[in-house]
Amino acid sequence: MEKIDTILAYKNSLKIIQDKDAYSYSIDSCLLSFFIKLKKKEKGIIDLGTGSGAIPLYLSMFTKSKIYGVEIQEDASIRAKRSVELNKLTNQIEILNMDIKDLPEIFPKHSFSIVVSNPPYFRLNDTALKNANPSLLIARHEVLINMEDIIKVASYLLIDGGSINLVQKTDRFLETLELLNNYRLTPKRVRFVYPKMKKDSYIFLIEAVKNAPTHGFKIEEPLYIYNEKSEYSKEVLEYFHYGEENEEIK
Amino acid sequence: MEKIDTILAYKNSLKIIQDKDAYSYSIDSCLLSFFIKLKKKEKGIIDLGTGSGAIPLYLSMFTKSKIYGVEIQEDASIRAKRSVELNKLTNQIEILNMDIKDLPEIFPKHSFSIVVSNPPYFRLNDTALKNANPSLLIARHEVLINMEDIIKVASYLLIDGGSINLVQKTDRFLETLELLNNYRLTPKRVRFVYPKMKKDSYIFLIEAVKNAPTHGFKIEEPLYIYNEKSEYSKEVLEYFHYGEENEEIK
Repeated sequence: MEKIDTILAYKNSLKIIQDKDAYSYSIDSCLLSFFIKLKKKEKGIIDLGTGSGAIPLYLSMFTKSKIYGVEIQEDASIRAKRSVELNKLTNQIEILNMDIKDLPEIFPKHSFSIVVSNPPYFRLNDTALKNANPSLLIARHEVLINMEDIIKVASYLLIDGGSINLVQKTDRFLETLELLNNYRLTPKRVRFVYPKMKKDSYIFLIEAVKNAPTHGFKIEEPLYIYNEKSEYSKEVLEYFHYGEENEEIK
Repeated sequence: MEKIDTILAYKNSLKIIQDKDAYSYSIDSCLLSFFIKLKKKEKGIIDLGTGSGAIPLYLSMFTKSKIYGVEIQEDASIRAKRSVELNKLTNQIEILNMDIKDLPEIFPKHSFSIVVSNPPYFRLNDTALKNANPSLLIARHEVLINMEDIIKVASYLLIDGGSINLVQKTDRFLETLELLNNYRLTPKRVRFVYPKMKKDSYIFLIEAVKNAPTHGFKIEEPLYIYNEKSEYSKEVLEYFHYGEENEEIK
């Protein structure tokens, strides 16, 4: 069964079509989209493993540059395309239903200045969610692709000085750093995300720049999902309501 | 000129003798001391670059195990010894006035279960404080020893499963991880320290365990020095007043 969620009220409502039984767009994609620093003009933006297309939809608020979303699961890619049409963004966003590992066959090296990915979080041998339905399994577990495959393709696609922007589980932080380094992607900026105060971080956001020098590494301010009252934090609410104020002024 | 600071009111006042013109005990040593997880019985604890001995003095609150403090600068090591005497801790704390790099000549491999260090933060080619007096320069810059030297000696001194606990500048975080890995010290736990909310982290605390498996890596809750009103945060004040409550109950 499908549902249409409003992911942002801004721009006459940005809407996303989701299947209730498949992987739903998550807050992580929202956090990652707001983490990315986009220049006015990007050479090209590509989201690896776009699911229902949440990240390209979000990024369309910040840039006029072309955005590709790549999704191997046909059902999800069709929903993503329909969401792009629903939001009248077919001129800017293109959804490709294909394997990320095959991207080098259609794009030459150095085709993009921004790679984004909210990849599967769980290793194949992790037990979590193992008996979920197949589409959930593929979205959350490294069944069809793993983090190294994604980072390798990202490094191929990026221009020097271009950035990869990832969200991943904090217990895979050291592995992520190592993989990025192995593919000449220099970590530059990290934000650790915490469910709330007094808790360990559970996911992190990272920007790494291709063939960049190693100095100038930053750990930015913590990002909390909930406040002490178990309500969404001020920052998360600002993301959800992004642009509304400007719209009212118009 | 000397001054005697009370570093904790607990235990009939823990006091530390400092030279006003030399490197003063800093809050970083306090944060690092409270970060370390001590077992009831440790094989041995050693603080590499102890300065005026702040870390051994702090750690004496948490353990009865023997604590060594190593300091190459004679003046500082004499002050540290006098502080140990002043606090009547000569049975527990021993200050060694020597080069950290020479420790393998007096201690066999695997002599300690805990290594601690608040090492010089600045590389030799960093410009900060370059024209300070010689003792300050040695305490803050990698003039006589660098982070790799310290980590190498730590790895030699530690038993398998023993831990190194460091504080370092956040812009040297990636370098620290790499050095630890190179000397078979597996990062396990990190706390990033922030001056206050909405700011980047400036230092971090890290625990790495010798020859440990890589799973179970944690980023713990952020540590803020100041609150929104530019007063010390609740956590820092708790450190400063550690134990006072228990003492009143007695």
